[in-house]
Amino acid sequence: MSETAVNVQLQHLEYLGDAKPYAGQMHTLIERSPLFENFNLAEIRLMSHFMQVFRAEPGIELVREGDAGDFMLFIIEGRIEIFKQDRWNSPRLIAVLDPGQTVGEMSMIDGEPRFASGVAADRCIVAVLTRESLARIILEQPVLGAKILMELVLMLSRRLRQTSAKLVGYMDKYESSNNN
Amino acid sequence: MSETAVNVQLQHLEYLGDAKPYAGQMHTLIERSPLFENFNLAEIRLMSHFMQVFRAEPGIELVREGDAGDFMLFIIEGRIEIFKQDRWNSPRLIAVLDPGQTVGEMSMIDGEPRFASGVAADRCIVAVLTRESLARIILEQPVLGAKILMELVLMLSRRLRQTSAKLVGYMDKYESSNNN
Repeated sequence: MSETAVNVQLQHLEYLGDAKPYAGQMHTLIERSPLFENFNLAEIRLMSHFMQVFRAEPGIELVREGDAGDFMLFIIEGRIEIFKQDRWNSPRLIAVLDPGQTVGEMSMIDGEPRFASGVAADRCIVAVLTRESLARIILEQPVLGAKILMELVLMLSRRLRQTSAKLVGYMDKYESSNNN
Repeated sequence: MSETAVNVQLQHLEYLGDAKPYAGQMHTLIERSPLFENFNLAEIRLMSHFMQVFRAEPGIELVREGDAGDFMLFIIEGRIEIFKQDRWNSPRLIAVLDPGQTVGEMSMIDGEPRFASGVAADRCIVAVLTRESLARIILEQPVLGAKILMELVLMLSRRLRQTSAKLVGYMDKYESSNNN
């Protein structure tokens, strides 16, 4: 199990065990989840064997911008506020995530530093999937593993399109504001 | 085979058969390939069974911005220029891709319209991978399929980080230029 590595970064949270008892609740949330919306209850049950559940009190930081991190969070209860530092190093609120949504997929995948911080806005319950657990799923449950990877690819592709379109828009706006 | 669907969009190119005879040449190029750099010759050989090869004369458009498309291209020979329309609908050169690099992964994955156009700068030889072929790889060669998906996830994640960082930079620049 990958609990050891996760526990180093999540040791300030209350560990509630593996995610098996939460599979039903997770399944009721997935229609709000860009990552898991196409998973059925049997797939969520199977995946829950590979996830651990933690509780965080309001105000607790779950992931920190710039930290290394190799896990993602699926929000089961509560909301998580996402902050990114602006160029004056002040945290700027860029999103509020609800149950069913996920946090930190990119660092789970590539192990690069967290792009933003996530702070519990309420008392939160989250299910954690580590890169090590994902690797185990791919080996032990290859069909489920391929499905998770395919959904990750689709989600990243969607986000990349949105972000690229926004970037093109800002480049245009910046150019025209400098030409005026 | 998915040749039919591909041929509709690539029928203006010369079809050279499947990619098996090109596996060795493709393998010599992969160190320049963000997508396939971690693939060994055996894996490239296996994958080449699922790819078709086409030749394009200079100036020929291989993918067109806004078109639907469910395939990607691996450049074996020649360079491809990538153009994106600016807000005056003029094509703006945004990249030049070399042998070993890939074009059109996002549309292969999600079937959404092409983000940009790709035009042969020289006489090009390209290997095509369709979504249907990728699905067959996942079913028939699950280990190879998981590896391709994992590399796609890593590549998209890297690009999303770069694009997001650029976006944050432009948002800052735009704000400060408007505050001055």
